[in-house]
Amino acid sequence: MFVCRQMSLYTQVFRQSRNQFIRHLSSFRYEDLQVTMTKTPALKPDEKIIKFGSHFSDHMLEINWSEEKGWGVPKIKPTTSFQMHPASKVLQYASQAFEGLKAYRCVDGQIRLFRPNENCRRLKTSAQRIGLPDFDQIELLRCLKKLISIDHEWVPQSINSSLYIRPTFIGTEPTLGVNNSSMAKLFVITSPVGSYFPTALEPLSLLADPHYIRAWPGGCGSYKISSNYAPTVPIQSQALKKYGCQQMLWLFGDDHQMTEAGTMNLFIYWVNEQGEKELITPPLNSGLVLPGITRKSILELCLEWKEFKVSEKSISMKTFSEALKLGRVKEVFGAGTACVVCPVNKILYLDQELSLKIDTHNSLTQRIYKELIDIHYYRKPHHWMEDVDDEEESITDRG
Amino acid sequence: MFVCRQMSLYTQVFRQSRNQFIRHLSSFRYEDLQVTMTKTPALKPDEKIIKFGSHFSDHMLEINWSEEKGWGVPKIKPTTSFQMHPASKVLQYASQAFEGLKAYRCVDGQIRLFRPNENCRRLKTSAQRIGLPDFDQIELLRCLKKLISIDHEWVPQSINSSLYIRPTFIGTEPTLGVNNSSMAKLFVITSPVGSYFPTALEPLSLLADPHYIRAWPGGCGSYKISSNYAPTVPIQSQALKKYGCQQMLWLFGDDHQMTEAGTMNLFIYWVNEQGEKELITPPLNSGLVLPGITRKSILELCLEWKEFKVSEKSISMKTFSEALKLGRVKEVFGAGTACVVCPVNKILYLDQELSLKIDTHNSLTQRIYKELIDIHYYRKPHHWMEDVDDEEESITDRG
Repeated sequence: MFVCRQMSLYTQVFRQSRNQFIRHLSSFRYEDLQVTMTKTPALKPDEKIIKFGSHFSDHMLEINWSEEKGWGVPKIKPTTSFQMHPASKVLQYASQAFEGLKAYRCVDGQIRLFRPNENCRRLKTSAQRIGLPDFDQIELLRCLKKLISIDHEWVPQSINSSLYIRPTFIGTEPTLGVNNSSMAKLFVITSPVGSYFPTALEPLSLLADPHYIRAWPGGCGSYKISSNYAPTVPIQSQALKKYGCQQMLWLFGDDHQMTEAGTMNLFIYWVNEQGEKELITPPLNSGLVLPGITRKSILELCLEWKEFKVSEKSISMKTFSEALKLGRVKEVFGAGTACVVCPVNKILYLDQELSLKIDTHNSLTQRIYKELIDIHYYRKPHHWMEDVDDEEESITDRG
Repeated sequence: MFVCRQMSLYTQVFRQSRNQFIRHLSSFRYEDLQVTMTKTPALKPDEKIIKFGSHFSDHMLEINWSEEKGWGVPKIKPTTSFQMHPASKVLQYASQAFEGLKAYRCVDGQIRLFRPNENCRRLKTSAQRIGLPDFDQIELLRCLKKLISIDHEWVPQSINSSLYIRPTFIGTEPTLGVNNSSMAKLFVITSPVGSYFPTALEPLSLLADPHYIRAWPGGCGSYKISSNYAPTVPIQSQALKKYGCQQMLWLFGDDHQMTEAGTMNLFIYWVNEQGEKELITPPLNSGLVLPGITRKSILELCLEWKEFKVSEKSISMKTFSEALKLGRVKEVFGAGTACVVCPVNKILYLDQELSLKIDTHNSLTQRIYKELIDIHYYRKPHHWMEDVDDEEESITDRG
């Protein structure tokens, strides 16, 4: 990893031709960024005790777009409410895409992001699916790094805490027609968060109710857009109230395929029908599953380890519960940015209570968790981590 | 129909006990309504030439709710943008439900609404599905009537025009957790609109592409919530650009059942396998179809006429196209608040172009259209129409 603040001639030439290219693409540009610093910095909360995503850092990034004028100038400014017209497309028709990633204060004192290019790329894909305009993902990443750099004091000092970053892209045209928004706003807010698991991994229970379907082939369950979330909220809330289950296990199809757990990707570690140890997660090709970045990283790590089979494939509740009865299911866990991984100790399914043993010290879940947080906090240096102050480096990433 | 502005003793007693009941339910109350009139009334646009839903009347209704304090006081105030926190649940997770109805300037000079109780009831159902708080639908209707009454000059004078009314209910809690919003805002904006068909009914073409699915069983396609709309926008837009089709014909299932047309309910008038004339529309029990109020009204009207069979049942593209080839399909039309009814003259399906003959003067579509607009403008007085100035009457509706 190198840090270089002086531009080489090569970099200058590269950047010039790149800027022309970006103008053509009509993306906003990091080099136009305007910064207005807050005059009233807020007190930092104790992220260990606050509710997830309820306190926000001093500054936000905001970039406006219109069909007429294209992308405006990116602005970093004090975090504040927007003026929103009541007819805005986002308020009326959920014209929205978003992302979630984290900035970590690493053991060497540097602040780093975990695979932020993946988030910026996914936001482009989601925006396209929902009819929002295109942009250059590297320009977004550069602006985003600058935002974190400015609010570096908001990246928690305490180990296992982090600064949660929420890029959000909304349609703002104030008209009631159900059509593409001719105006949009891309903004990024950040929020200091404690560890999901302050001490050890805490298992959760899932309700697998085939009456409620999160996503469908031909729908948009594989995109990170607001539409996929609100409809799940009262169902999850009922799962907790009625059955004491913290999350839903979302099923699909007549054979009750397992797809996702709450807002997390799902992993099952078992001994398969051929007697092989295998880690499986539902595949992306059905369109039922979000292409999670933690999901992708776990698959890549475990493939590198070459200790057991790693598969993206569907598994039905019947296959799963039969394997569980035969003692072939070793572990089930969810994976996502918020928790990293989260072990499952119970699944309620058609009046059956399927119990899973949890070994908090010597499990694959625990091992993956440790591996990932060692990478996040740079106890194990890894190319997945990007320094927020290393603006040059992200450009070379582009190819 | 009676108008009574003096309260009888009975009404006073009824209202007192009713108010206690409402407090218990924690609904807002019409009697608490506060009105602030604009000091800068806007010029009324020519609704015949403006884009649908792009101009708004001078006043809006706004009512805030919080888990802590319950419902606040309803306010009618100048139409204006909101202050929205960037982390609001509606911006992040599509915590939203809405409605669409119209106020008509009738031939006797009175301003009336078409079945507004149905909209207020449906908004309650949608709110429940999306985790937003309950309210008393009659109190909402009373506030809404007052809003229209105040902005009565915004109800267009020209025949076939109307004032489109958009009640919207959003979750506003500014936190990033995926859970029920502890804060919400119910607001109503209105917009003068011209007729969908300034001269005669104009037919539209539909693209029936089984790759895209609007709604599925166990999802929320039968609720009027923003989540159902944004995902359809780029698909509809592509249908127009690539195939010249104005709307999608949304299909479902392996047998390609016809479900909805764009944002409208779908009707097919045909001679069925038994040789009977029959009007069919896809059923509500599958959860794939919005329970439209125009849909319901058409079913009720046609049942009253007793001239042909009226059925809510599924129809597959195979059954439909075979019947079409045999000359048994007489008409296809969409139905909704914006257009009332809209004839279909072409369906593109798996590289087939299915053409439908349009008789603009002597069709069932035309007859239903005339019947409904005669009711809307009170050329045919009907109990479906509610006078906006008749506040007492709506209360007696409650039982």
